[in-house]
Amino acid sequence: MLSFESDYNTGAHPAVLKRLAETNAEPLPGYGADPYCERAKEKIRKACGCPEAEVEFLVGGTQANAVVISTMLRDFEGVIAARTGHINGHEAGAVEYTGHKVLEVPHKDGKIEAAVLKKFLADYYADLNHEHMVFPGMVYISYPTEYGTIYTREELTALSDICRAYRIPLFLDGARLGYGLMSSACDLELADIAKLTDVFYIGGTKVGALCGEAVVFTKKNRPCHFMTSVKKRGALLAKGRLLGVQFDALFTDGLYFEISRHAIEMAEEMAAIFREAKLPFYLNSPTNQQFIILENDQMERLKKQVRFGFWEKYDESHTVVRFATGWSTTKGDIEALRELLKECQ
Amino acid sequence: MLSFESDYNTGAHPAVLKRLAETNAEPLPGYGADPYCERAKEKIRKACGCPEAEVEFLVGGTQANAVVISTMLRDFEGVIAARTGHINGHEAGAVEYTGHKVLEVPHKDGKIEAAVLKKFLADYYADLNHEHMVFPGMVYISYPTEYGTIYTREELTALSDICRAYRIPLFLDGARLGYGLMSSACDLELADIAKLTDVFYIGGTKVGALCGEAVVFTKKNRPCHFMTSVKKRGALLAKGRLLGVQFDALFTDGLYFEISRHAIEMAEEMAAIFREAKLPFYLNSPTNQQFIILENDQMERLKKQVRFGFWEKYDESHTVVRFATGWSTTKGDIEALRELLKECQ
Amino acid sequence: MLSFESDYNTGAHPAVLKRLAETNAEPLPGYGADPYCERAKEKIRKACGCPEAEVEFLVGGTQANAVVISTMLRDFEGVIAARTGHINGHEAGAVEYTGHKVLEVPHKDGKIEAAVLKKFLADYYADLNHEHMVFPGMVYISYPTEYGTIYTREELTALSDICRAYRIPLFLDGARLGYGLMSSACDLELADIAKLTDVFYIGGTKVGALCGEAVVFTKKNRPCHFMTSVKKRGALLAKGRLLGVQFDALFTDGLYFEISRHAIEMAEEMAAIFREAKLPFYLNSPTNQQFIILENDQMERLKKQVRFGFWEKYDESHTVVRFATGWSTTKGDIEALRELLKECQ
Amino acid sequence: MLSFESDYNTGAHPAVLKRLAETNAEPLPGYGADPYCERAKEKIRKACGCPEAEVEFLVGGTQANAVVISTMLRDFEGVIAARTGHINGHEAGAVEYTGHKVLEVPHKDGKIEAAVLKKFLADYYADLNHEHMVFPGMVYISYPTEYGTIYTREELTALSDICRAYRIPLFLDGARLGYGLMSSACDLELADIAKLTDVFYIGGTKVGALCGEAVVFTKKNRPCHFMTSVKKRGALLAKGRLLGVQFDALFTDGLYFEISRHAIEMAEEMAAIFREAKLPFYLNSPTNQQFIILENDQMERLKKQVRFGFWEKYDESHTVVRFATGWSTTKGDIEALRELLKECQ
Repeated sequence: MLSFESDYNTGAHPAVLKRLAETNAEPLPGYGADPYCERAKEKIRKACGCPEAEVEFLVGGTQANAVVISTMLRDFEGVIAARTGHINGHEAGAVEYTGHKVLEVPHKDGKIEAAVLKKFLADYYADLNHEHMVFPGMVYISYPTEYGTIYTREELTALSDICRAYRIPLFLDGARLGYGLMSSACDLELADIAKLTDVFYIGGTKVGALCGEAVVFTKKNRPCHFMTSVKKRGALLAKGRLLGVQFDALFTDGLYFEISRHAIEMAEEMAAIFREAKLPFYLNSPTNQQFIILENDQMERLKKQVRFGFWEKYDESHTVVRFATGWSTTKGDIEALRELLKECQ
Repeated sequence: MLSFESDYNTGAHPAVLKRLAETNAEPLPGYGADPYCERAKEKIRKACGCPEAEVEFLVGGTQANAVVISTMLRDFEGVIAARTGHINGHEAGAVEYTGHKVLEVPHKDGKIEAAVLKKFLADYYADLNHEHMVFPGMVYISYPTEYGTIYTREELTALSDICRAYRIPLFLDGARLGYGLMSSACDLELADIAKLTDVFYIGGTKVGALCGEAVVFTKKNRPCHFMTSVKKRGALLAKGRLLGVQFDALFTDGLYFEISRHAIEMAEEMAAIFREAKLPFYLNSPTNQQFIILENDQMERLKKQVRFGFWEKYDESHTVVRFATGWSTTKGDIEALRELLKECQ
Repeated sequence: MLSFESDYNTGAHPAVLKRLAETNAEPLPGYGADPYCERAKEKIRKACGCPEAEVEFLVGGTQANAVVISTMLRDFEGVIAARTGHINGHEAGAVEYTGHKVLEVPHKDGKIEAAVLKKFLADYYADLNHEHMVFPGMVYISYPTEYGTIYTREELTALSDICRAYRIPLFLDGARLGYGLMSSACDLELADIAKLTDVFYIGGTKVGALCGEAVVFTKKNRPCHFMTSVKKRGALLAKGRLLGVQFDALFTDGLYFEISRHAIEMAEEMAAIFREAKLPFYLNSPTNQQFIILENDQMERLKKQVRFGFWEKYDESHTVVRFATGWSTTKGDIEALRELLKECQ
Repeated sequence: MLSFESDYNTGAHPAVLKRLAETNAEPLPGYGADPYCERAKEKIRKACGCPEAEVEFLVGGTQANAVVISTMLRDFEGVIAARTGHINGHEAGAVEYTGHKVLEVPHKDGKIEAAVLKKFLADYYADLNHEHMVFPGMVYISYPTEYGTIYTREELTALSDICRAYRIPLFLDGARLGYGLMSSACDLELADIAKLTDVFYIGGTKVGALCGEAVVFTKKNRPCHFMTSVKKRGALLAKGRLLGVQFDALFTDGLYFEISRHAIEMAEEMAAIFREAKLPFYLNSPTNQQFIILENDQMERLKKQVRFGFWEKYDESHTVVRFATGWSTTKGDIEALRELLKECQ
């Protein structure tokens, strides 16, 4: 069945899988001490234009968020996130499990606005009782956001400036980073992300890998004895090569960006089909996830022939649904979707 | 270079990798809801002779230990382990990170003796102040142990009986389970393990997979909403297929046992070579890890031509080292080792 | 200087202190096993009209909240609270420190409305991805709330009904319980609180004790081996008598209610003075805390002669301040305040 | 009934209680911001000969241990303690609850020997896999120990030197500090403790207070925003005066030392009586706790007329019991014990 359910519904990009097979028989040291990890790190440092970056591989997104946040926060601190931030609503309380609070702020289309952040911090420090409250110790954003939206250079710079003024790190969850950077709406490059944030990760799971996220500490700020902290959280892979080889492949000849660009193109064509079919958009997403509003009947009919994601109830008779593209989405899939939509009108 | 460094120094068994490639393009639901996970679970239930078993896949051993222990213990309980137990010394405090104490007991060749366990529990409940102490809420053993030794049926039955008498679960860490079951010294079958323990896991990482451990709850005792608890610990894989496909392959046509048997055969040949070379054994391991004592000079010479594991200092002039076999160890490797040992005498 | 800063700014009610002195020399068992603790528990059970209640003493409010919530929640659950709930904003993340999320809902004058709670729970279970989210496992309310407001019998019954429908406990933080029960606006009795909630605590610290909160589990639902869990959280007092003797005194001859009634009377007189002085109320509090809006100049003048609490900025030129009464507030204090307000007009 | 059950079986020393009564009506700021706390801190700094010491009050011993250890350790570190250390066996896993491991080392009469510590640290860093293990991040000792024994100046200096060489703090649990310092066997002064350790606490609960431990950070090493961390652990007292007033009293005119000296004198007389009665000592304790071995029959007879502590089974027919003295032990009590022992021979 046609599937736009998610960007992690197929395996790895063939080039990634090929490298896993080619290197499979080599005996290598475990726990990330193999040359593929080292090579991948070097390529990522280059791609980030940040030679001093410290790169670490983790298995998944929720894990990366929890590990990064809990090792960077101090005991008395929490992390600021948009109410809709992934860590706030969809990670089963993984940050709180580490003993730290997520400090909710309002969002706009999934983004934290600079003015909102500024006010939150100012109010916090103006409160005479703030020592009884969780200190704001980090700002978490995602790029693209859960709504598929992206920060402009101006917006990201503004957040970055505020974080620096308060001396707290800005952490960017890049589970879908490629899809943000390759969006036509994007006015940022990877090097800008590295410059404006203090730590971020380059998502592999949703951009062509079987698993894996590359965490990049950009300010010589990797927590001390990070590997031990990773192990302590059950997040250290014995066969670290699984991550090293994949990221080495993704950052060879620009594959990561190529995969991302492809998915964006497919998403743009898909969006065109939705417009053509006069299906209303829930919001304007410039990335690989498109959110549309379907009549419930229409949704039920469609469901029988194509897989997509349920997002949320819109009203009694309508539902917001999500269609995602990825490395494996083909022109054929898009065409098939066009046909389907015609039938299901 | 010749490598007997560990049983996780090469990638996946070719048959496992092949299945990953064959299924790679199929769009599948995430988070373990795919048919390969289901199929693998069914095969594991059969292999365990335990149709009611609840099987869950996790990524690695330390993670499996921490997740199982912390979701099964009650607030006021800790887990009993041998002083040499992996969770006690070599997991960076992952159990304690979940808020639970590891209660150390003495070991013999890495094993907990029934008499020792019995006394520990009796003494605990005899202490009038025991409510100020951590309750013993689970027993953790590994099979094979960190020293490559295995429990006999009699020994495991004795531990199992004590646990039942005290109504606490017996948890068996089977990171290298296959190597125990295929050992010539083994008088147990997988179905016995399932019967005698309350929960155990079948290690994939060290027995032919890229990653993955299959946790088996054998007494309808899987913790409620386990998936949410797994997510909360950052241990839920988006592309759960990576685990499902691998375990499906490992439990098709007995591959898991075949891999294990092969490694045992290689280890037995290796042991014969060590005996031939008159190298003293540190202890008698019937599994895929062989521990020998080398003179430091000899060790330095060998190191230049073969990779092996440092285990511990024996005395001022000797060191205990570990040689491990796995799916990828060949007869040629063993022969090469024989030649090397001759040279390095 | 005149002080209406808080209801914990003086020591213990003289009758409480007297009992501490009278019993001081008696040798007694530690950790709450003394007869005063037992006697106090029995009196509290009677006062609650709940003979099967299980009563436990803890030292302070944040501690009581964290201990109760973390021992009653299951691993995958969090606690619902109003955004303004004390656990959400003013306890330095003590609940999150135990590994559980506080699930914020909107409030009205510090209270959770039944309709809001109902919708939150219904939406949660309607979400197809809810297993990736923190399960709502308890509802936390305070009585009186942080704004000094109280739930009516109807409101509390509605919350209680919803909790029962979802089989989650309703937990009432009664740090200032007496001031709620003795309010003229109150249409509930202590026995109603015991009936409608699953667990609550009777605040001592703010109602005449030096320290101490009496947690009441009303449905035979005290967590197993609670004492060990309390010890594990560093919350077990060696000289448990300190709590037992104080609560024994507070629940002898209705002292707890007498203290509370006195503070309410003082608060009512204070409110009359504020009305007389035409000082606008921030909200209508029927309990021992009164919130008024002062011009900043006026506030500065007043500050020199009377202590009160800063609550929050109202606008550029006004501030919300809090005046609290307690066991030690006298008619003389109220008169002095009247005079002061006249001068400071 | 005659009671030597513990040193916390009676209330506060009368002079302490008197000060609580005298200051009871004064309106004071909460959370430790009152002048009595400040005054007590100043007196403690003086008594410690350490003007730069940072003093913080906590409620109890287990709490103090957990708060200090968890705020001073880094994420990847654990705390070294003797197997018999209070944190290791008798605090219900309070340290592990904070996510940190207690690293057991062997003891001699409850003390950690310098050679043992040295070897433990050297072995740890010699292990090539030590990054997979918990880093030793602090050394915990108690003074007196759980066995009533005390470190000599030489012994404590040796431990201190090792800690400094490894740059890890030495933490001394002084729940019974006074009884150590006032022992005839003691060759240390409070100022030496302050100098040789990095943090320690002066126990109040067991030395004349109703509750309270004064934590002393001696090297300008109080964790940042300590008050917030204390609150986060539910350990912040609203009426902080309760601790401030008591410690102010204890450190006025040397009361703390006077109480301790008195208990030591009583213990010495008690020991003489035991010798006279030819009761064998379990070990030689120079402090306020005496451990003797009783025949089980004799113990049963004694139990009817005097309360003492059960320590541990000695053999089938003998038991180790503990007799403790405190501020409230009188010469009359000692005489009564002498008579009793004569009768019970």
